[in-house]
Amino acid sequence: MVIRKIVSSPATSWTKDEGPFHHIVISSRVRLARNLEKLPMPPFQSEAAGQTVMEQVKTAVEEINAQEKEGLSFNRLNELSSMDRQILMEKHLISAEQTDENPNKGLVINEEESISIMINEEDHLRIQVLLPGLQLEEAWEHAERVDNLFESRLEYAFHSEKGYLTSCPTNVGTGLRASVMVHLPALVMTNQANRVFSTLNQLGLAVRGLYGEGTEATGHLFQISNQITLGYQETEIMQNLITVTRQITESEEETRKVLLKEAPRQIADRVGRAYGILQYAAILSSQEALKYLSDIRLGIDLGLLNIKIEDFPLNELMVMTQPGNLQRRTGKVLGAIERDAARAGLFKEILEKRG
Amino acid sequence: MVIRKIVSSPATSWTKDEGPFHHIVISSRVRLARNLEKLPMPPFQSEAAGQTVMEQVKTAVEEINAQEKEGLSFNRLNELSSMDRQILMEKHLISAEQTDENPNKGLVINEEESISIMINEEDHLRIQVLLPGLQLEEAWEHAERVDNLFESRLEYAFHSEKGYLTSCPTNVGTGLRASVMVHLPALVMTNQANRVFSTLNQLGLAVRGLYGEGTEATGHLFQISNQITLGYQETEIMQNLITVTRQITESEEETRKVLLKEAPRQIADRVGRAYGILQYAAILSSQEALKYLSDIRLGIDLGLLNIKIEDFPLNELMVMTQPGNLQRRTGKVLGAIERDAARAGLFKEILEKRG
Repeated sequence: MVIRKIVSSPATSWTKDEGPFHHIVISSRVRLARNLEKLPMPPFQSEAAGQTVMEQVKTAVEEINAQEKEGLSFNRLNELSSMDRQILMEKHLISAEQTDENPNKGLVINEEESISIMINEEDHLRIQVLLPGLQLEEAWEHAERVDNLFESRLEYAFHSEKGYLTSCPTNVGTGLRASVMVHLPALVMTNQANRVFSTLNQLGLAVRGLYGEGTEATGHLFQISNQITLGYQETEIMQNLITVTRQITESEEETRKVLLKEAPRQIADRVGRAYGILQYAAILSSQEALKYLSDIRLGIDLGLLNIKIEDFPLNELMVMTQPGNLQRRTGKVLGAIERDAARAGLFKEILEKRG
Repeated sequence: MVIRKIVSSPATSWTKDEGPFHHIVISSRVRLARNLEKLPMPPFQSEAAGQTVMEQVKTAVEEINAQEKEGLSFNRLNELSSMDRQILMEKHLISAEQTDENPNKGLVINEEESISIMINEEDHLRIQVLLPGLQLEEAWEHAERVDNLFESRLEYAFHSEKGYLTSCPTNVGTGLRASVMVHLPALVMTNQANRVFSTLNQLGLAVRGLYGEGTEATGHLFQISNQITLGYQETEIMQNLITVTRQITESEEETRKVLLKEAPRQIADRVGRAYGILQYAAILSSQEALKYLSDIRLGIDLGLLNIKIEDFPLNELMVMTQPGNLQRRTGKVLGAIERDAARAGLFKEILEKRG
């Protein structure tokens, strides 16, 4: 089964280290919020209504699979273990809200893991496309194609003036949220990040840390996304984010050059210590791992570390060091301290293998 | 010349990793303060009087060398470069006060560097014997023998009731200061060190950090010495310090066993990180180097690191990482930042050689 293969590996579509500007733009994501006509939205949903949504989507998926080549797999999330659901979350394929035991929460996903559709999350359908590097247009095209496949088989809640109706008012309109995950160590180190982020806010873009709202930025990773969907065309929203992402990428690149020129020893020291600690620590928290992975990523980009990405897959390692994936790897349930030890063991093994 | 050989190497008598209890007691030191009759003591000394002291000691050294096998070398410190004097200080062969340009400051030393006699420091003569491990009796015997050789050739300031007269009243009597340098990481980590030290104070012993009075304890290294000399026999002073040092050594050993049993991962983590940082840092302060050397020393003692002391001479490295020795090694005068880089380079070289 597709889903068993997916939860057994930390690798996923966006963890491939490729795509335009992948040294700074880790991934691109497009998400469309859609709801079915005449059925209450999930926050106000009865169990029966939830079942109806699941059945309608299941039928649509079967039709699509019979007629198209999307290769979609329909899954009831409560049939998976809680560890499997956590792994899906750590791979960014479902949200934290989708990890509970609710019997009517579902996930439609393709084998490449580039499309993942959450069913009965905040909206009836949340169609997500995740790709590595700066590939917002490609992600948008794929999301739109999948959206059309469903729209021709399901009756969407749509208002002729407002557009797509959604559970949360901020999504009404296009229902589109587009985002990029960017690695901005140089802008943070030189205290320019906050200024950049406040400019982004003025442009209607939101900036969050790696694991969604409220979390502090970990490992110099930030998600930049559009805040408003109503009153804009999808293409406007996408172009705005693409332009801004290119500017930030340039700015980060320039700042890295300055850092390397002005403070080469400090950078080498930071990168070297991260490497030494990852190789030799015996206890490593998740936060620390992300911090040092960020330093290593910077070191590789600046040519300070002779590491091949095949031997040290940075993006996959970010997923591998999360609790669910760590427990899958060690084959047992681990307490917080054992996880910190297992995480340290993982890096020791990988780095010692390098020689 | 003996002195040129001495300043060209960081190795010295006490840096040999040997002698009883050398895993905890780094070195033993005995120092005798002596002054010449009818000559003002150094703090109140004219230049002419200083010259007279130098000449009398020089003559005595020549006589001793002709008649005995001590192999002493007489040196005027102002004939050495300030870097050389700094190196002698870092090897604990002279004090900081003895590094200035005063033309009448001298050093009498043997080839093994186990005896070093400062001339015109706080007293006319300060006879010091430094040995590795817990060898206070051996150090005392050697100091006494050398003292007798001088006493039979020079007229010492001696009072029939008070004993040897010295510049500072705390040294009057035997003029003896005996000390050990001990490595007590487990007692510090378990917050027992302060309690132990306060007991030592009640027993008339003083505890100081590695580089003398006033400095904070660096790298978990402490000097324990007698505070009072008047009213005690030399043998009483020595026995008191030996007994206490053995007790502290036992206590540190016991605490290490407890730590290894109760917190094996935390200890492995601490030791591992120290190793990783020493190998991969590009900037390393003197304080940091001593801190991580302490962790490595603990790791070797506890069998957590498979390092041979020949490849990683801990005591010599403590000296090598000091500013004067670093500059001698790189062959140029270095600013603080360059020293931190040279220090990091030193460890990288040694640890990469290990493979």
